[in-house]
Amino acid sequence: MIKKLLIANRGEIALRIIRACREMGIRSVAVYSQADADSMHVRLADEAYCIGKPRSNESYLKIDQIIAAAEVAGVDAIHPGYGFLAENAHFNEVCRASGFEFIGPSPQAMEKLGDKNTARKMAIANDVPVVPGSEGLVESNEDAIAAAAKVGYPVLIKATAGGGGKGMRVAESEETLATAFSQARTEAEAAFGNGGCYIERYVGSPRHIEVQVIADTHGNVCHLFERDCSVQRRHQKLIEEAPSPSLPEHRRAAICEAAVRMIRGAEYSNAATVEFIVDAENNFYFIEVNARIQVEHPVSEMITGIDLIKEQIRVASGEKLSFSQDEIECRGVSIECRINAENPEKNFQPNPGKIQSIFIPGGLGVRFDSHVYAGYTVPAYYDSMIGKLIVHRPTREEAIATMRRALHELQVEGISTTAAFHDKVLQHPEFVDGLHDTKFVEREFVD
Amino acid sequence: MIKKLLIANRGEIALRIIRACREMGIRSVAVYSQADADSMHVRLADEAYCIGKPRSNESYLKIDQIIAAAEVAGVDAIHPGYGFLAENAHFNEVCRASGFEFIGPSPQAMEKLGDKNTARKMAIANDVPVVPGSEGLVESNEDAIAAAAKVGYPVLIKATAGGGGKGMRVAESEETLATAFSQARTEAEAAFGNGGCYIERYVGSPRHIEVQVIADTHGNVCHLFERDCSVQRRHQKLIEEAPSPSLPEHRRAAICEAAVRMIRGAEYSNAATVEFIVDAENNFYFIEVNARIQVEHPVSEMITGIDLIKEQIRVASGEKLSFSQDEIECRGVSIECRINAENPEKNFQPNPGKIQSIFIPGGLGVRFDSHVYAGYTVPAYYDSMIGKLIVHRPTREEAIATMRRALHELQVEGISTTAAFHDKVLQHPEFVDGLHDTKFVEREFVD
Repeated sequence: MIKKLLIANRGEIALRIIRACREMGIRSVAVYSQADADSMHVRLADEAYCIGKPRSNESYLKIDQIIAAAEVAGVDAIHPGYGFLAENAHFNEVCRASGFEFIGPSPQAMEKLGDKNTARKMAIANDVPVVPGSEGLVESNEDAIAAAAKVGYPVLIKATAGGGGKGMRVAESEETLATAFSQARTEAEAAFGNGGCYIERYVGSPRHIEVQVIADTHGNVCHLFERDCSVQRRHQKLIEEAPSPSLPEHRRAAICEAAVRMIRGAEYSNAATVEFIVDAENNFYFIEVNARIQVEHPVSEMITGIDLIKEQIRVASGEKLSFSQDEIECRGVSIECRINAENPEKNFQPNPGKIQSIFIPGGLGVRFDSHVYAGYTVPAYYDSMIGKLIVHRPTREEAIATMRRALHELQVEGISTTAAFHDKVLQHPEFVDGLHDTKFVEREFVD
Repeated sequence: MIKKLLIANRGEIALRIIRACREMGIRSVAVYSQADADSMHVRLADEAYCIGKPRSNESYLKIDQIIAAAEVAGVDAIHPGYGFLAENAHFNEVCRASGFEFIGPSPQAMEKLGDKNTARKMAIANDVPVVPGSEGLVESNEDAIAAAAKVGYPVLIKATAGGGGKGMRVAESEETLATAFSQARTEAEAAFGNGGCYIERYVGSPRHIEVQVIADTHGNVCHLFERDCSVQRRHQKLIEEAPSPSLPEHRRAAICEAAVRMIRGAEYSNAATVEFIVDAENNFYFIEVNARIQVEHPVSEMITGIDLIKEQIRVASGEKLSFSQDEIECRGVSIECRINAENPEKNFQPNPGKIQSIFIPGGLGVRFDSHVYAGYTVPAYYDSMIGKLIVHRPTREEAIATMRRALHELQVEGISTTAAFHDKVLQHPEFVDGLHDTKFVEREFVD
């Protein structure tokens, strides 16, 4: 059993993991950069070690420093959170080779699923629908033209190592294909050191729907239903909810079962998210597997009552899942708004700085997962998320009303936040009716 | 329908009611004393009116000032919260006579239930068990001796207008009866202007179990299961939970049905709590009805998902209850700790003052209902509660672990709080096993 665990992360997710440890009687060890010395994850962990300078590549991405801290602290396991090293198979391997349990899948499963082209082949092998596309990577302009003709325009060119919208281009016709292809390759090469690209049919008016899955090392795989993350800006999720407001019940069952098949086929253990795009006819197509806990995991926790971080720790210890699929019920509706220190009036420009005062929303059905407090300075070095505001109510209408009330209550002085922007989105008829797709925000609000 | 509502209260309950109003699209009007100008209920309400000086009897108890504010603001209704004027039938009557809906029962029902002796008679008439006791008030020493002999020693002498332990004495035998009787009368006369007392059998090792009931004006009465409030110090509740950890299922059904009979028999509408003491053999005896929302209502909200304040407002508007008894399910376990600005090391001496910094607990299953924030000064004029920390988890063991984690997270600088004391109580084997009675805290911790 795990008795002491190091969290190789910062911010709200570090705090989230510390909370689970404390409730399980596991000692928690924080690591932090010099910019995070006053962070709540440092104060609430049982022990904390400074691992370097503010910039991520001098601290939170420094594998040797993290392993050194783990050795000094004498932990049994390392939880990577999300972002930073969470999907780095090499880090995963080094942790295990150094004698620390890694809270996540095996490095092999992580590596396979981390490559989009391999993951796509695994999806096909497991009878999980994929968007029609090129057979493997497209190496030249000629290959690209032939592949695009086969799948039909418009097409999407995607970097195999991509993420967050980088290395991704749409081509409407053969005329624009060559330029788009070369841009995607160059961008992917620069961002990921891997210019490999493939081509697939471009799905118009897509919704982003993903399924939360968790698997143990004994062959048990369960899903915790789906999340709808279609409220995005530049491929960054802003609002997530569970269940999806638009998916009919039979498609919901089908998408969840497909996700379970995918994870079972990958011989994967621990938490995973299987992401899909869903078209206007409710056809769903596999995009990728995220081999880690995700930012938006709380909405799945709220509708099921299951603590996903605790379950991750349990299955990494070799325990069986503490529930069977039949025991997992979906109750009510949960919505999460990512509150960022950004100024929506100035094109969402990051707005780090000192929080002079803050009032944290409370009341029935409200959860605020955050590491910030009055007097805390949001550093400029990391992503701008200062907290996740989550609600859970019996109906979607009530959940929206509660979220709007809570956003109004979240009064922050000293820095700009996206709270008021979320309130505008929540009032939009397209969102209220659950008809929005991933283009909704850009179409109706910004850019 | 109610469109604008005045809240005749302060602190967390004022905020709780403002939250419900905002979610329902009702405009909220706060009133406040000069000591509360910086209070969050003033800032979050749609309008706010100062009604007088800091001392309660110059502001929150001043009926004419509250009615004047309601008239100026043009509200439709007044919610009294708990404490202050919440169970003042005269205030209730004045509200209605001035044309404002009062969010609570009729003045008649309030008056009848507010008198303990009348309430006891109503319980007997509705087949709700009461502790064996005197027939009505006991006027003289001779009457007291005769009544005590009939019900059997030890006996409890209770003021008919009493509450909070005032005007209450135990007599073990006839030798101590006269002194106890005269003390109770004197204390009751001084505290309530009414020295009337009655006598009942003293129940040893009692648990305090109460049932949350809500009724509409169409004859529908539902219970939201019971709460166990046995963790008390000097008759003040410290920790409340739902459901009771010690009541067997068949007694649970019986106590809930008795509470519904009581409220139905009283021709009562709106929210009420029917309080019982329960002996070691799980016999329950009616104590009193609280004709208002209670501090500990959130634990009932957590296990049922029902928003009690919204339901109060709906039934006061003449609507039918939005659920039937069959639709109310009890899910999981909820615990509430009342966090007071008191110093447990100094006999729980109140410790008002400025909150220099505060970290509010978050995460799965945690709710913190509070009006305080970093920089807020807790005034010395009112009760010392600064917030209610509430958890909800699938099992009692998990709920205790989550509460202990959340108490650890609630870091307050500037004033002393009872958070660490709660943590001690939660670890005590008697509490962990659910075996504690109302004497538990005084026996094991203090006094």
